[in-house]
Amino acid sequence: MGNYQSSLEAAFHALADPTRRAGISRLTKGPAPVRELAKPFAMGLPAFMKHLRVLEADGLISSQKVGRVRTCRVNMEKLAAAESWLCAQRAFWQAGADRLADYVETQMSGSIENDG
Amino acid sequence: MGNYQSSLEAAFHALADPTRRAGISRLTKGPAPVRELAKPFAMGLPAFMKHLRVLEADGLISSQKVGRVRTCRVNMEKLAAAESWLCAQRAFWQAGADRLADYVETQMSGSIENDG
Repeated sequence: MGNYQSSLEAAFHALADPTRRAGISRLTKGPAPVRELAKPFAMGLPAFMKHLRVLEADGLISSQKVGRVRTCRVNMEKLAAAESWLCAQRAFWQAGADRLADYVETQMSGSIENDG
Repeated sequence: MGNYQSSLEAAFHALADPTRRAGISRLTKGPAPVRELAKPFAMGLPAFMKHLRVLEADGLISSQKVGRVRTCRVNMEKLAAAESWLCAQRAFWQAGADRLADYVETQMSGSIENDG
């Protein structure tokens, strides 16, 4: 699997869970310690840490421990790969919709000419 | 779970698999019959159909059977929700990066004034 495909794999897998999405969403606003990240969630710290480990294994975040505090930060590269893939799909789809509109327009102006 | 959150859930879950991504990517170029969609993949039709059923259950595609031919088409709404979520995350992150740049600039111009 190429680098781009494996980035997509990692990003979409990581983001398929609401806790992980919320964690990413918090971290795009700036780095945060694990305990602060965990606070909004109705789950124990060990359950939350599992989600962080998925995010870290998928390369969407990195973390560093200084003293007793582990601080997480987001890596934007894989999110960017996922966004650009989705943007490309929309462009393909839009190009098709434009071709269809052109076709309909050609057919309609053809009919009007034939009628005239 | 709200409508937007459940769209994200569906989209990211569906796209976490390379066969499903490739299927979506083909369908953004226009509707296609199941057999044509399945052709590029080194798997049997039943295995491929499982992926199509996930895409359909997640609402990323719809299909219609006419005679013996089932034709699939992409639904863009959930892809668009996923793209707009990712775009928002990038905007948050960019705003933070801009604030950091402003801060560094303020600090540096402060130092230069102090030196002068």
